[in-house]
Amino acid sequence: MKFLVAGLGLIGGSMAKALKRSGTVADGYDREDVVRAAVQAGAIGQAAREFADYDVVFVALPPDAAMRFIGDNRFKKGAIVADICGVKSEIERFVYGKERDFYYVGCHPMAGKEVSGFENSCEDLFDGASMIVTENDRTDPAAVRILETIFRSMGFGRIVHCAAEYHDKKIAYTSQLAHIVSNAYVKSGTADGYAGFTGGSFQDMTRIAGVDEKVWTRLYFLNKENILSELRTLIVHLEEYADCLNKGEETDLYRLLREGRMRKEELDQQR
Amino acid sequence: MKFLVAGLGLIGGSMAKALKRSGTVADGYDREDVVRAAVQAGAIGQAAREFADYDVVFVALPPDAAMRFIGDNRFKKGAIVADICGVKSEIERFVYGKERDFYYVGCHPMAGKEVSGFENSCEDLFDGASMIVTENDRTDPAAVRILETIFRSMGFGRIVHCAAEYHDKKIAYTSQLAHIVSNAYVKSGTADGYAGFTGGSFQDMTRIAGVDEKVWTRLYFLNKENILSELRTLIVHLEEYADCLNKGEETDLYRLLREGRMRKEELDQQR
Repeated sequence: MKFLVAGLGLIGGSMAKALKRSGTVADGYDREDVVRAAVQAGAIGQAAREFADYDVVFVALPPDAAMRFIGDNRFKKGAIVADICGVKSEIERFVYGKERDFYYVGCHPMAGKEVSGFENSCEDLFDGASMIVTENDRTDPAAVRILETIFRSMGFGRIVHCAAEYHDKKIAYTSQLAHIVSNAYVKSGTADGYAGFTGGSFQDMTRIAGVDEKVWTRLYFLNKENILSELRTLIVHLEEYADCLNKGEETDLYRLLREGRMRKEELDQQR
Repeated sequence: MKFLVAGLGLIGGSMAKALKRSGTVADGYDREDVVRAAVQAGAIGQAAREFADYDVVFVALPPDAAMRFIGDNRFKKGAIVADICGVKSEIERFVYGKERDFYYVGCHPMAGKEVSGFENSCEDLFDGASMIVTENDRTDPAAVRILETIFRSMGFGRIVHCAAEYHDKKIAYTSQLAHIVSNAYVKSGTADGYAGFTGGSFQDMTRIAGVDEKVWTRLYFLNKENILSELRTLIVHLEEYADCLNKGEETDLYRLLREGRMRKEELDQQR
């Protein structure tokens, strides 16, 4: 089987390196200098020539570029083409809206770093991580099985199967909302001179504040309704705490904090 | 010098153990069973008998209990009495509102765990951490110098000096607001079944959600104005993101995310 990784940034680069570690050398597609660096690092074999030559194509590009890449190119008949975008419904809609003779599978690896680019990629980024595979009645079960085997060999510790819509709803909350909150949290003027006034809570809260605005703006708009809904839910909850403090209702604040603590304990059981 | 640690929970217990590690055995004050456990663990020498016997008294109790302890007991003339509460102005107001012939110094160690109690205390909890010492024109400089030496011997890596009001403003943001956000974040119904749908952002965002509602309700009300102000600032910021998404203003969302990212980079320089 011939593998191609299109997009050799943090995720694509790490996929190529993880494949390499497992004994499979993929070809790569990216800007010329990135491909050169990836070849030099031994992460890929060579620059991709003819996309229709590959049996498995990982599309590790941002959503719009991923859709263009899948839409504009010809792939081998029966090839598996899998994107790794952080939103899935839009990509699915786009892919299924076109005629195709390859197998499409939507994927989303639950791994990352606060830094990007091939220079930060590493072969163990996915070790023990979860890979989400989105499926519907048009998904080829054999293609999914092949990908599962590949993902396990890359180091993924868990494969989750769900519909694209379910993925987008979950991710809006577990990841996209968290990035907005973090990005908003640092904006208080009180943040200046925080060093010495924190034991770790502030760092955890703001670790992911530095989103790449170009990538994330698109991700947010491609999953707008879900994020808006989660953001509004959070704001409503935060306003309840503000309301208690403002009105001096100590018993009510106690109740709010207790609800949160109990909810947290409940979620910890679901690990 | 004779040391007393009043309150042998996570912080007090760790202080006693850190003192012990440095070669100083303190006496302890707490519920009988806790004191017994602390003696058995070798964290303290014995149960406190006469509070007026001690030269240095660490009051590691929740705010109300700390004020009662300081207000109701007699201490040695010239003793250093230092509380470690998470709010400082209220404690200062209380202590300075009474006649006293001991030296009071407000402290707040920037260290903790998501669990509490003596059973979770450890001698290295403060290693490399920051200790905030609050001061004003009534603070005895010699008492502060002695405490500094003790804190360094306990493992603290940094001592920060500031006014109680400044402390309360900073902590409202770096710690207290973060705990509210975390506590509110878990309340979304979407959280159920989060496992497999996160690579760490969700865990970081919600690590401190499980606050002890009894302790924290009081802490929040003792620092109400500062927290309300920070909470409202955050809500205003979050509403800006919601507004952009709602109105479909991609350029504006891009700008908001960019501002957050740049702010984060600025703060990272202040480490």
